Amino acid sequence: MRIAELSRRSGVPVPTIKYYLREGLLPAGELTSPNQARYAEVHLHRLRLVRAMVELGGLSISAVRDVLGALDDPEKSLHKAMGTISAAVAPPDLGVADEVAQQQVEAFLDRQGWVCRPKSYGYKALVGVLATAREVGHERFADLLDGLARAAWPLAEADLDYVLSAGSTDEALEGVIVGTVLGDAAMAAVRVLARRELSGRRDAALSDLGSNAPDPDPPKP
Amino acid sequence: MRIAELSRRSGVPVPTIKYYLREGLLPAGELTSPNQARYAEVHLHRLRLVRAMVELGGLSISAVRDVLGALDDPEKSLHKAMGTISAAVAPPDLGVADEVAQQQVEAFLDRQGWVCRPKSYGYKALVGVLATAREVGHERFADLLDGLARAAWPLAEADLDYVLSAGSTDEALEGVIVGTVLGDAAMAAVRVLARRELSGRRDAALSDLGSNAPDPDPPKP
Repeated sequence: MRIAELSRRSGVPVPTIKYYLREGLLPAGELTSPNQARYAEVHLHRLRLVRAMVELGGLSISAVRDVLGALDDPEKSLHKAMGTISAAVAPPDLGVADEVAQQQVEAFLDRQGWVCRPKSYGYKALVGVLATAREVGHERFADLLDGLARAAWPLAEADLDYVLSAGSTDEALEGVIVGTVLGDAAMAAVRVLARRELSGRRDAALSDLGSNAPDPDPPKP
Repeated sequence: MRIAELSRRSGVPVPTIKYYLREGLLPAGELTSPNQARYAEVHLHRLRLVRAMVELGGLSISAVRDVLGALDDPEKSLHKAMGTISAAVAPPDLGVADEVAQQQVEAFLDRQGWVCRPKSYGYKALVGVLATAREVGHERFADLLDGLARAAWPLAEADLDYVLSAGSTDEALEGVIVGTVLGDAAMAAVRVLARRELSGRRDAALSDLGSNAPDPDPPKP
């Protein structure tokens, strides 16, 4: 197909496709004349993956390039690819040196029995989040971490099962990308829905803030 | 304090502070001369909140303005503020019209017993995520939604408890911002840590992809 059809079928504007081609996120098409190229289904598929990472995952162009590098690596390993993808999707490392926040993260990892190097992406990101919470006067925010871990563990299991049920390494690697990037976007959307549902059910309690009266409208089962 | 001290204590560069002042994200300081202003602790606090939303939450300047508008609204209501904040943190609505994805979301909401209008932010974002998953050939991604909901529900409860335990409406509103923006960033970091921990434990299984042999190294309890 021509670039116009690639654009129509992917929903990505032609100038953006040309930008992705220049940045190496999309392999070049087959040249049919000095200034025309033909693209195949494999290009459409790759373009949709790139679009998902940029638009839903909010990944930067260089992060997308890293992730695709893991996918195209001839010596690809799923574990290594998961590391690359973790680095790309983890919240930014704010570079905060906060002793208390670091101790909170260490204590949390101890409670969970998780082995984690202080230089790994999730670790630094979490220290930054807790340091920020402390800065804005929410020290007790760290109390929420164990609940997050209880929620995150079965999700990580489901992610990994999803990946391991793939028929080939290529398919599994793509499953890591889809599971991680789309999984985080889906989780954010589901949290929004859950919060709204719950705040609707507890509306009476919300409008009665500050009083310690029992919820007059108990949540439905 | 002068703007230089505000910058030093917040870690936000002076030009960025001036930009936030121009954009109305930070109230003006008290003028001490035609071109010098004095800032108070309240400015430092607001600046740290803005930084958290921009750097950790990845919110756009206009989304931050909406959220702060909810905080500064004289007729503020927690439920309304939660709506505004949900809109700001929900993944983008890709504007995809995908009948199958919409049916998947409807079926999911039915199974959960959640009441949700098709125009709400989380709903449209979720349709976009599922449509994207289908486009890249991962139809069964929708199977993960119930697990996300099971994980999201206790988190939403913890968020709301956190907010309701605040002493004043102002504090509660700020709790919504902190709980939502920092909560999403913390969850993303904890998911990264959980995935790495689990993939480390299952490493043997990962390097044996494609075979259906049982995991030779069962996960530690």
